[in-house]
Amino acid sequence: MYEKLFDLINQGKFTAARNEIVEMNVVDIAQFLEEIPVEKLLVIFRLLPKEIVADVFSYMPIEDKQHIIEAITDKEIRHIIDELFLDDTVDMVEEMPANVVKKVLKNTTKEERDLINRFLKYPEYSAGSMMTIEYVDLKEDMSVAEALEHIKRTGVDKETINTCYVIDKGRKLQGIVSLRRLILSDSSKRIKDIMNTKIISIPTHLDQEDTAMLFKKYDLTAMPVVDTESRLVGIITIDDVVDIIEQENTEDFHKMAAMEPSDEEYLKSGIFNLAKKRIAWLLVLMISATFTGAIIRNYEDILQSVVILAAFIPRLMDTGGNAGSQSATLVIRGLALDEIKLKDTLKVLSKEFKVSLVVGVALASVNFIMIYFFERTDIRIAFTVCISLFLTVVLAKVVGGTLPIMAKKMNLDPAIMAGPLITTIVDAVALMAFFSLSSWILGI
Amino acid sequence: MYEKLFDLINQGKFTAARNEIVEMNVVDIAQFLEEIPVEKLLVIFRLLPKEIVADVFSYMPIEDKQHIIEAITDKEIRHIIDELFLDDTVDMVEEMPANVVKKVLKNTTKEERDLINRFLKYPEYSAGSMMTIEYVDLKEDMSVAEALEHIKRTGVDKETINTCYVIDKGRKLQGIVSLRRLILSDSSKRIKDIMNTKIISIPTHLDQEDTAMLFKKYDLTAMPVVDTESRLVGIITIDDVVDIIEQENTEDFHKMAAMEPSDEEYLKSGIFNLAKKRIAWLLVLMISATFTGAIIRNYEDILQSVVILAAFIPRLMDTGGNAGSQSATLVIRGLALDEIKLKDTLKVLSKEFKVSLVVGVALASVNFIMIYFFERTDIRIAFTVCISLFLTVVLAKVVGGTLPIMAKKMNLDPAIMAGPLITTIVDAVALMAFFSLSSWILGI
Repeated sequence: MYEKLFDLINQGKFTAARNEIVEMNVVDIAQFLEEIPVEKLLVIFRLLPKEIVADVFSYMPIEDKQHIIEAITDKEIRHIIDELFLDDTVDMVEEMPANVVKKVLKNTTKEERDLINRFLKYPEYSAGSMMTIEYVDLKEDMSVAEALEHIKRTGVDKETINTCYVIDKGRKLQGIVSLRRLILSDSSKRIKDIMNTKIISIPTHLDQEDTAMLFKKYDLTAMPVVDTESRLVGIITIDDVVDIIEQENTEDFHKMAAMEPSDEEYLKSGIFNLAKKRIAWLLVLMISATFTGAIIRNYEDILQSVVILAAFIPRLMDTGGNAGSQSATLVIRGLALDEIKLKDTLKVLSKEFKVSLVVGVALASVNFIMIYFFERTDIRIAFTVCISLFLTVVLAKVVGGTLPIMAKKMNLDPAIMAGPLITTIVDAVALMAFFSLSSWILGI
Repeated sequence: MYEKLFDLINQGKFTAARNEIVEMNVVDIAQFLEEIPVEKLLVIFRLLPKEIVADVFSYMPIEDKQHIIEAITDKEIRHIIDELFLDDTVDMVEEMPANVVKKVLKNTTKEERDLINRFLKYPEYSAGSMMTIEYVDLKEDMSVAEALEHIKRTGVDKETINTCYVIDKGRKLQGIVSLRRLILSDSSKRIKDIMNTKIISIPTHLDQEDTAMLFKKYDLTAMPVVDTESRLVGIITIDDVVDIIEQENTEDFHKMAAMEPSDEEYLKSGIFNLAKKRIAWLLVLMISATFTGAIIRNYEDILQSVVILAAFIPRLMDTGGNAGSQSATLVIRGLALDEIKLKDTLKVLSKEFKVSLVVGVALASVNFIMIYFFERTDIRIAFTVCISLFLTVVLAKVVGGTLPIMAKKMNLDPAIMAGPLITTIVDAVALMAFFSLSSWILGI
């Protein structure tokens, strides 16, 4: 796709390359620059037109941003910081090493530094840390014409002008008015007569996951963030929320596969970092699996006399694990999307129990046919295996369906109650049932 | 939260209830109405002010929509259809039973019916089926003032006016101009001089998942949809994309837990429907697990002479399964977010191999300490178990990391190569390694 560009750059024809590049979308430019060696990136970057340089910069990965800051002049830095939205600057300051941050802060005004510091104080993953302060504020007694004039004068530097916020002298949020409403209203009308006063606002300390939930629920593209005295302190726009939604989903995927979640891209993570995120849970689960082993050890005599029973262990363990994962996943996902609430515990329990009866009977029947007719095993063993399988499925589904809700009730993340943990719990009980039943039915 | 309202409604004080309700956000109204009995819902619904009735309607679940359509007059239906955006009407028509659809279509114009039919022809889950046709179109040679006048005149019925689309006589898309740009530009300027011609557009047949990916990549809030001759046929707005993102994530969660994905909410799904989505994969995986059983059967003699070996089966199986799930999940998620590309197969393979060496050594060491020092097992058995565990982890991670990419290369959904399937594959190989090693080290 970019062969021609790569060729131009490799031949040192930077101006020609730059002329091609400026025709591209800023996101594509940032992505393209990521693929070329850093010395060449710096040359191209400094050739970019002033109007797009900050935009391209904001879409670059943190390592490239760092290289650029290290290489460019103070004047160039100042231009970029001026153009960047404050939330992007804050994100950058949070992620860069101290010496680079110093070079950035040197090129900000005292006022900007104070703002950055205030932002850095909001808890990570809170609405406060996500918001931007570049919004349009209007006053109640402005006319529509005055408001549009005000937007024309100040709008250039705002992250969005599609939604404007009406505040009083104490910066208390009075109402919201969309640009659409302004355009479609008579220009002599007062803002207070057209503003929407059914305000849905976000407190600064609200968790980003709950923030995303509000956006989804109300189908909004921007929401105001208010402090404890309902003063407007910033806004959050939907593009940041989309990223948060994916981030929260990734976190759930990771937790459900028994890993510590990570924000880092897979290909950019180091080996030891990746290993570290995985070992802890594997150890915990491995040690738990020794209990299952201890149960087998406990029934050693039975196994000794009918060693064939061991051949059914994988089938019981795998089916139990899979049946439990299914239920746990449905419930964890339902909780994450707010489709299942805490008060639904009994409903879920009864639903999973009924489903497990259907699934259990189906699997046990197929299994009986396989064991008795095809594998030609003793009918008593066939019965033992099928009854154990049925019990395992019921147990797995009931445990899998309820543990995530229990976790949520105890303010734990439901996602940790996923497949791996439930498999380990179900394994132990399943094998205990299997050996007790064997001992009873086979009379050993 | 709504106790007072419930009380009013139960006492039949509908007008008082209605006065409380109109103060709420339309999304909350729809959600509240969902909780009251259908006869009362109908009373309240018909008392709602005309301006919000279609909005509330659009946020209701399909069953309630159906009850309402069945109960209200043709005139009321016509009002709702007039106010609804076409994409919402189409969604409704797709989901409702034939007799209700008939009542809806009876109240549309011939032109509307043609449009609805055209929409129904787009493949499900394609950009065409998601888009809306209520957008603002401008002409190149309009001035900014004329454009704003045009928006004022026609904007009320548009889904968004924040982005406007510039088309020529043949409806070919020429450029895009944001309302922001219009407001901030000099009113005598021509549209063609301020419009953005670096257009990123979506073909009608593009899959909704890829559509969402474009929105995320370019941080957009609306995108134009074009036909094969690059004529503008509709637009897609970010609020629909947010829903798609969650839907695609849910699908992946379900597939990764070995279920057929479902759009239905858990609590609203029937028992047999839920069971049906789960049985097929459980059966496939159970039957696969018989191969693992066959391996154990094959090594019956070894197990007969050293029955204690059976006690280590759960530990090997569980750890292998968990280690494999971790890798598979990371890669599946990386592919879904487009962070891992098909060309990265070797990188992933080498990364997983190296990580597995670190994780394998760590787990095997802890395991050795547990088996030899705490469980006081024969040192040869301890070695056998630990080497098998190490090999299992390496195998699990390499298989878990590569299979999802292979699946994608073969145009299959990577998500089906998740934990359950990989566990089953790894189990068989792990136990084979374990028994062969035992036979060799213990000399049986």
